[in-house]
Amino acid sequence: MRYSAVLFDAYGTLFDVHSVAALAEQLAPGRGAELSALWRQKQIEYTQLRTLGGRYKPFWEVTRDALDYANARLNLNLDATQRERLMNQYACLAAFPDVKPTLKQLRDTGLTVGILSNGTPQMLDIAIKSAGIAALLDHVLSVDAVRAYKTSPAAYQLGTHTLGRPPREILFVSSNGWDAAGAGWFGYSTFWCNRGGHPRENLDIAPTAEGRSLADLTEFLAGQRAGKRQIH
Amino acid sequence: MRYSAVLFDAYGTLFDVHSVAALAEQLAPGRGAELSALWRQKQIEYTQLRTLGGRYKPFWEVTRDALDYANARLNLNLDATQRERLMNQYACLAAFPDVKPTLKQLRDTGLTVGILSNGTPQMLDIAIKSAGIAALLDHVLSVDAVRAYKTSPAAYQLGTHTLGRPPREILFVSSNGWDAAGAGWFGYSTFWCNRGGHPRENLDIAPTAEGRSLADLTEFLAGQRAGKRQIH
Repeated sequence: MRYSAVLFDAYGTLFDVHSVAALAEQLAPGRGAELSALWRQKQIEYTQLRTLGGRYKPFWEVTRDALDYANARLNLNLDATQRERLMNQYACLAAFPDVKPTLKQLRDTGLTVGILSNGTPQMLDIAIKSAGIAALLDHVLSVDAVRAYKTSPAAYQLGTHTLGRPPREILFVSSNGWDAAGAGWFGYSTFWCNRGGHPRENLDIAPTAEGRSLADLTEFLAGQRAGKRQIH
Repeated sequence: MRYSAVLFDAYGTLFDVHSVAALAEQLAPGRGAELSALWRQKQIEYTQLRTLGGRYKPFWEVTRDALDYANARLNLNLDATQRERLMNQYACLAAFPDVKPTLKQLRDTGLTVGILSNGTPQMLDIAIKSAGIAALLDHVLSVDAVRAYKTSPAAYQLGTHTLGRPPREILFVSSNGWDAAGAGWFGYSTFWCNRGGHPRENLDIAPTAEGRSLADLTEFLAGQRAGKRQIH
């Protein structure tokens, strides 16, 4: 199968949340990893609970709710200023070093390239501009448009609606195993960019392909093109 | 408000998962708490992801999928026999000591009493029989009937459909903060049995009442009855 478009998840896939962990460690010495892990876990949990219960709230606010919970649950007593610093850090995440060259390469091969993210349009706009990748993206899609988070089909459908192509022809790339599974359930071809080296989620669906970085994605797509040339 | 019925969540609320943690510690010395926490987290996450994605799978199987993931993620190398022992332990959870006296007392005051759980009918049947509380329950409702997990409205609706009463007149009791929030979103009156002493979830809804044990629930309901007598 030769794909006509590649859609990327944003947080953890294109944008590196590690800088948040570093600041968390600075603000809560010895507890930074714990704080950033629980913050992320609650952030995702809240998006899922809210979508299930029909209680959408934008990702920026959910992110703040999750931070406040993690702070309380871990008894860290971070004050409002410190929590604001963490939120600001989240707003200005750096892109992984493999992002810009990969996007450039994909565009050079004629692929349509976009983002499909839980983040709000404002959050994505800041992150994309500060990473200097705005000109490399054909589409930036936020689930805010449908007020439903992944793994809701309504969220994934944004991609097929916008691109006007069947999901199997689109390669959905995520570093989050659950997101790759949800996209696969919807019908996308999927590439799991397993940056963390984690085991596969037990959700009865395997990604179409997987690798450890976006360099592996480029290689996978090059292999697809080569295969296509050989067959025809 | 005088309630006409009380619906209980099962796992963590009526049935104590602590015995699982003890066996986990025996099988993976020094890692038992970590294993049982990640197992539980993935179990709930998988129910939510599957419901969002329209991929229902019974709770027993989801529980096994979550255990297998936790085992792999934590590099514990528990073999099939050891994992089977943990699953069997989960099948035979003990009830908390406050369960039987509370259910008896609620029934004595004329309340309709039931369970509304993510567990399969078979799982619930075993746990209820081994706790000796079958005769104290008017209804045992499993979300398996609607193939949607909490916090989906379809799951909570099982209770109002079965009882034929508006949700506000039913007190939904859960030890899981997210479950109390979901039930509240649906419209139930809620009692958060905060056995773990955790902070409230940041989901923009407070429980109707909360306490640390089912004894606090009995007290709350007695207060409601006394209030009612005073007003009329």
